Amino acid sequence: MSDKDGFKVTPWAVEGEIDYDKLVQEFGTQLINDELLARIKRHTGDLHSMLKLKYFFSHRDFDWILDKYEKGEEFYLYTGRGPSGSIHLGHLMPWIFTKYLQDKFDAKLLFQITDDEKFLYHDSMSMDEISQHAYENILDIIAVGFDPEKTKILIDTKHIKHLYPIAIEIAKRITFSTVKAVFGFQNSTNIGMISFPAIQAAPCFLPSKIEGRQTPCLIPAAIDQDPYWRVTRDIAEKMGYYKPAQIHSKFLPGLGTRGKMSSSQPETAIFTTDDPELVEQKISNSFTGGQPTEELQRKLGANADICPVFWYLRYMFEEEKSSNERYVKCKSGGLLCHECKHDLIGPAKSYMIEFKRKREQAKNLVDKFIFED
Amino acid sequence: MSDKDGFKVTPWAVEGEIDYDKLVQEFGTQLINDELLARIKRHTGDLHSMLKLKYFFSHRDFDWILDKYEKGEEFYLYTGRGPSGSIHLGHLMPWIFTKYLQDKFDAKLLFQITDDEKFLYHDSMSMDEISQHAYENILDIIAVGFDPEKTKILIDTKHIKHLYPIAIEIAKRITFSTVKAVFGFQNSTNIGMISFPAIQAAPCFLPSKIEGRQTPCLIPAAIDQDPYWRVTRDIAEKMGYYKPAQIHSKFLPGLGTRGKMSSSQPETAIFTTDDPELVEQKISNSFTGGQPTEELQRKLGANADICPVFWYLRYMFEEEKSSNERYVKCKSGGLLCHECKHDLIGPAKSYMIEFKRKREQAKNLVDKFIFED
Repeated sequence: MSDKDGFKVTPWAVEGEIDYDKLVQEFGTQLINDELLARIKRHTGDLHSMLKLKYFFSHRDFDWILDKYEKGEEFYLYTGRGPSGSIHLGHLMPWIFTKYLQDKFDAKLLFQITDDEKFLYHDSMSMDEISQHAYENILDIIAVGFDPEKTKILIDTKHIKHLYPIAIEIAKRITFSTVKAVFGFQNSTNIGMISFPAIQAAPCFLPSKIEGRQTPCLIPAAIDQDPYWRVTRDIAEKMGYYKPAQIHSKFLPGLGTRGKMSSSQPETAIFTTDDPELVEQKISNSFTGGQPTEELQRKLGANADICPVFWYLRYMFEEEKSSNERYVKCKSGGLLCHECKHDLIGPAKSYMIEFKRKREQAKNLVDKFIFED
Repeated sequence: MSDKDGFKVTPWAVEGEIDYDKLVQEFGTQLINDELLARIKRHTGDLHSMLKLKYFFSHRDFDWILDKYEKGEEFYLYTGRGPSGSIHLGHLMPWIFTKYLQDKFDAKLLFQITDDEKFLYHDSMSMDEISQHAYENILDIIAVGFDPEKTKILIDTKHIKHLYPIAIEIAKRITFSTVKAVFGFQNSTNIGMISFPAIQAAPCFLPSKIEGRQTPCLIPAAIDQDPYWRVTRDIAEKMGYYKPAQIHSKFLPGLGTRGKMSSSQPETAIFTTDDPELVEQKISNSFTGGQPTEELQRKLGANADICPVFWYLRYMFEEEKSSNERYVKCKSGGLLCHECKHDLIGPAKSYMIEFKRKREQAKNLVDKFIFED
């Protein structure tokens, strides 16, 4: 969306300090409220910390998905990955949450690899390079632990024959004016990028084709992808499909300056391929919400709200209660940054070592996860 | 192209009385001259009447194709069909000529069925309807007599996986500004139509992918398709491919008012599915270049230049010499229109009866002609 509020969120750039409440207003989505959380909990038994802590904070029609689920209608999950680089924790978090939804609702999942879009978007990236990223990223996806019986990975250029007939139905209903307004495309935009929204929208309706009946679809993804679903929702019913529902996450803060964890600034992100020593080093060098000196910190307290170390611990490795205590202690000057970093380094290293092990195992599972042609 | 000269030629509309010399200037193509005809004849032994009579009248780089051929490099033919209705004589003529080129140059042929474009273009046509047309049109293509060992038919929605990787390479290099200028697309054009030129361009480079080396490609088609190739030629070399060459036909005049034979005015066209009685009836009712009364015609002569009956005979069923004699006789008032109609009805009926027979046989050959997946 526009950067008139000092931040910018589009599928291709997330910049500035994001006011998520404003974003929800601008995008026209709904905040996840306590009533919805309580309703989710009735089905899941427990609430994932990413829900409790409002990392997943916004939605469109999640309540409708529950209506359908409560009537015994199965829904599909659909999410995706643009394979332009390595996977870092910021990418993993929505996938970990997606696995939670799959487990709790016994839902099938379509995972789209948008290699075509990355090729169309990046001037200098070759298709070979992107295919290599796609393979590596698929290992990460599998390592998250999705159910191989219920999860199918679609690679756009490989599985285009399943997407294209739906994509042209979609494309027929979207004009240049619309994608210009929604995605900011211009006359100088290439025609591949211009029509790509139809390819990203197609998996929303693939479940209905697979199942042979209208099938609800829920998309867990970071909120920067929302423009795609807005356009898709506008045309879904005209095409005889349900509107796809969404549940939106925030962005994981980077270890460097403010903004989302980003592959283009490798020192600010913890990658699944980083050695444990590098994970330790990156956390040790991380930006925090601390004061310039220990004396000042003891006196004024630090700012946990802007501190990536605090948020990593909270979202990934700490119970809500301990995290709340850490927050109070930090604010009041009772904690120094190196202590929090130390608390994060241990579990982060363990997590990444275990993840790398699963990632190795994933090499034998790729065929099982790939959508049947 | 624009209608500032009182005619209009685009891939979607051909209107008015076309000045082909002006069109060649506007499109920037080359007229086929006697030198080129002589060079072609050295390889083919005889010149097809469509060349001698300048039905195929314009080209881009046909001479370069001959350079390559003379050096022993094989070239591919590529042409196509948008399956939005039945096939009439106007469609068959470039295909008959394409078969002549295949036979004489022992060339492989890719035949693209652009079902996607027809779906994207026609507001109210369903994909099922288009698929039915595609099947019927493929019977006509096969009935023309192409070599099944050297001819492969690609249906866009079925074979998209072979086209899409090439199409995104192409699409990446074409902006909205370009397709706006070349095809007249507007902000209200749907995004499928906007990116379709990349799908129609893809088969130009498929021979190079199939053969594993740069392979020349020659496109025989009516000149209304030229805008596609102009765009494709601009980017071919940047992509590491040869520019596709073209040989352009005029349009077969309709039996009704002036303009090309058109499926949207069925009374003006002879369809391959018409019964012989209907062929006779359509020719009997045809517009001609004749005078209102026999007396006037004997006195003033008739206008063969604008007479579809004359041109059908000339292009399809008469030797050059007899046709020249007919022309002189008509101009001088020595022929009445019903005589020419009679001369046309016989061979046209025979041709269509024989074509229908081959079309029936084609039903058993479809699998042999379809591109291997």
